[in-house]
Amino acid sequence: MSQSPKQFHLNAFLMGVGHHEAAWRHPRTDERRVLDVAHFQELAQIAERGKLDSVFFADGLAAGPRVEHNIQAVFEPITLLSAMAVVTERVGLIATASTGYNEPFTLARKFASLDHISHGRAGWNIVTSGGADEAANFGYDETPDHAGRYDRAAEFVDVAVELWDSWDDDAVELDVAGGRFADPAKVRTIDHDGARFKVRGPLNSPRSPQGRPVLVQAGSSESGKNFAARYAEAVFTAQRTLAEGQAFYRDLKARVAGAGRDPHSLKVLPGIVPFIGDTEAEAKALEQEFTDLISPAYSLRQLSGMVGVDLTEHALDAPLPPLPPLDRIQGNKSRYELVKNLAENEHLTVRQLIGKLGGGRGHRTVAGTPEQIADDLQLWFDREAADGFNVMPPYLPGGLEDFTTRVVPILQERGLFRTEYTATTLRGHYGLDRPAARIGAARARAATA
Amino acid sequence: MSQSPKQFHLNAFLMGVGHHEAAWRHPRTDERRVLDVAHFQELAQIAERGKLDSVFFADGLAAGPRVEHNIQAVFEPITLLSAMAVVTERVGLIATASTGYNEPFTLARKFASLDHISHGRAGWNIVTSGGADEAANFGYDETPDHAGRYDRAAEFVDVAVELWDSWDDDAVELDVAGGRFADPAKVRTIDHDGARFKVRGPLNSPRSPQGRPVLVQAGSSESGKNFAARYAEAVFTAQRTLAEGQAFYRDLKARVAGAGRDPHSLKVLPGIVPFIGDTEAEAKALEQEFTDLISPAYSLRQLSGMVGVDLTEHALDAPLPPLPPLDRIQGNKSRYELVKNLAENEHLTVRQLIGKLGGGRGHRTVAGTPEQIADDLQLWFDREAADGFNVMPPYLPGGLEDFTTRVVPILQERGLFRTEYTATTLRGHYGLDRPAARIGAARARAATA
Ligand SMILES: Cc1cc2nc3c(=O)[nH]c(=O)nc-3n(C[C@H](O)[C@H](O)[C@H](O)COP(=O)(O)O)c2cc1C
Ligand SMILES: Cc1cc2nc3c(=O)[nH]c(=O)nc-3n(C[C@H](O)[C@H](O)[C@H](O)COP(=O)(O)O)c2cc1C
Repeated sequence: MSQSPKQFHLNAFLMGVGHHEAAWRHPRTDERRVLDVAHFQELAQIAERGKLDSVFFADGLAAGPRVEHNIQAVFEPITLLSAMAVVTERVGLIATASTGYNEPFTLARKFASLDHISHGRAGWNIVTSGGADEAANFGYDETPDHAGRYDRAAEFVDVAVELWDSWDDDAVELDVAGGRFADPAKVRTIDHDGARFKVRGPLNSPRSPQGRPVLVQAGSSESGKNFAARYAEAVFTAQRTLAEGQAFYRDLKARVAGAGRDPHSLKVLPGIVPFIGDTEAEAKALEQEFTDLISPAYSLRQLSGMVGVDLTEHALDAPLPPLPPLDRIQGNKSRYELVKNLAENEHLTVRQLIGKLGGGRGHRTVAGTPEQIADDLQLWFDREAADGFNVMPPYLPGGLEDFTTRVVPILQERGLFRTEYTATTLRGHYGLDRPAARIGAARARAATA
Repeated sequence: MSQSPKQFHLNAFLMGVGHHEAAWRHPRTDERRVLDVAHFQELAQIAERGKLDSVFFADGLAAGPRVEHNIQAVFEPITLLSAMAVVTERVGLIATASTGYNEPFTLARKFASLDHISHGRAGWNIVTSGGADEAANFGYDETPDHAGRYDRAAEFVDVAVELWDSWDDDAVELDVAGGRFADPAKVRTIDHDGARFKVRGPLNSPRSPQGRPVLVQAGSSESGKNFAARYAEAVFTAQRTLAEGQAFYRDLKARVAGAGRDPHSLKVLPGIVPFIGDTEAEAKALEQEFTDLISPAYSLRQLSGMVGVDLTEHALDAPLPPLPPLDRIQGNKSRYELVKNLAENEHLTVRQLIGKLGGGRGHRTVAGTPEQIADDLQLWFDREAADGFNVMPPYLPGGLEDFTTRVVPILQERGLFRTEYTATTLRGHYGLDRPAARIGAARARAATA
């Protein structure tokens, strides 16, 4: 077995009974399991048997237009991952959480808890919550503007990092004889006083096994990429063609370098929705079965949200109407661009567009044999469009089971993927350094003043 | 075996390796387990073997003065209880969470998650967060005032209840053939627009097994008792004498009736710290071993916080200095009164006071044989000072193991406590109704307008 020096990373993006929007209607799924914690525990175990780096949950803070057709975020991700942590030992656990509608102290503490509970396997997908329906659940009449959301996110993460670093690694002494639980000189206030947050600290949790969770990011707008360049250690992204993937990869790595960081310290993980069959024809037929189950009324509502135009009365077999300019989109700018380009470049009708988006809401779908899928992933990896992949099984658990038992072994054969875990933490799997606790920024300023 | 028609309720209040402030220094504990999720999973299993109604975690949103001496709230309670839910089947799971520094949407959703994950065993201990150190972690220069905190708590719970009720029980249809996940007519916005919160809803989680978590409350000030009378289904309280316990019980039940509710719909659960021995002398000697491990410097800091006066330089063998009047206390008013009365009535020096408070921060300690402890609990129950107890083992897991294997069987013998679970949910254990989903208050207003 050949060993490539550079290996890639695989994250399992989990959602209900699968990413395909009609997954719950297909006989390969049991739709009742969307509400069953044991289902998610099994998924984590499947991912761990496949030696995957991590599992991941998206999240949103509104019921949204999914209520009627599908609801995917029944469980709050950190709470759910805690239940999955205790039935696994190695696989990383990445939760999405919003900087828009949380407080840094509370959220930093939750991730510290998850990192303690999982013995160092927590990751945080940092999102700014762009939905108008989310804003309405938190007192806002409209979505806070895009740039302001990223400003808040930056200060939020700064505070969270200071809180995670407010306990030195060796602060907890447990000195029974001397009666000293922790050394107070090694636990510091952070005294953060910024534009949006004022937080004294220290955190009410000792420093966690990873020091801090792995920081993940998934916005691909200009502000999103600059934010990622500064903070992210992994980036989830939707890229449809190799050329687009390469351009995004180059762009982001250059920004990381520009921010004074080692480009290897950020992993680019494009999404991929794999339909696996014994033959290519079988895989494509399976994909078609799912497409045929799509409910157009629901898809039109979802598409309307993506492009900022009400399409619910629009003819299915006509092309998209003219769309508003990018600067009018306050929600997810990068998804808007992806959808617009896809429709224009491939001259799609709305019905065709809906079919293409059904698999993974814009993420790339690949239907083929395990070999073909492995070839595709390797191509993106070799050509520097990806450091690994965000695997989005169209149906669950079957689609994840198939990927880990049929595609992963081929990647292992080729020396592209680990055959055993070599680390115990998510940082370790991703080859990331464990950050040293540092004196809070506010204290450092005071010390040099 | 006689069966009493009225039985009582037992909640295990869990904290680190025990409630006694020096527990972690005593040979009966392994102090390293404060950071070990498996320790807490075992505690839940011990409680379940003892057929207890529930386990419970307190919580605070600041490291507080405990850093040096002890830290008890390493884990965020909901996250931790999720990990405990999946290794148990019956025991209730009560988490403390603050109305002061959370948003109703986010918190309602977390409790819905825990209730789904545990199949109907979640409870919420509603606290307003009175600590100045907590306020400083959320942008406040001082603690928001006492009355305002309870006003916020009331509106917070109103919103949370509306969110839990925003999905009808039968909204989720999972109609695979028809392609309808949920019936949109059974999922409603709440359109709450109040003094402090504006929340559209619906919640992004289907109605949970219990409809809503059991609502628990633990403040015993005037505002606290009025809040409890309106909202709480169980109340944790610190009462030191039978007479005080009876007075509190009568007072609270009268307020519940005054609020138009059935007095049985609220369970009064005073705290009790049991030291168990083969003989009374052995139990008292054990208690003394713990008292001897108390670190006075730490206790003085904690006592200072309770009474609103800096006692860190105060002579240990003198009585308390004059204390500020009750209306100057913005934090925990009832604990202030308890400590003040205890010191005055028993003419205690500061050192003696610290010893009395060491077991459970003011809660009543009983040291004796299993029979004596059972007698004591039965007395409080028979004389209408309690509907059950908040059991606070001084050391863990041993103190809980001893209580469940030595005291519980006596209570069962006497027909005072269940020998098997007769329900699967926490509401069931407490004999509480499952609330019917109701139309959100805002909608009801609109409908009658
Ligand atoms: C794979 C992937 C997963 C995402 N998951 C979430 C999510 O769970 N919650 C969310 O609010 N946004 C999510 N997003 C959206 C982005 O995080 C970001 O909020 C959005 O793209 C808007 O930012 P942008 O305008 O910078 O692109 C996801 C995006 C991608 C590519
Ligand atoms: C058994 C018990 C447990 C409590 N747990 C907490 C807690 O976990 N967090 C908290 O902030 N307050 C806790 N408290 C305090 C009360 O909930 C309340 O916030 C405090 O008593 C102030 O309210 P009051 O002035 O109405 O008494 C607890 C009180 C009791 C009796």
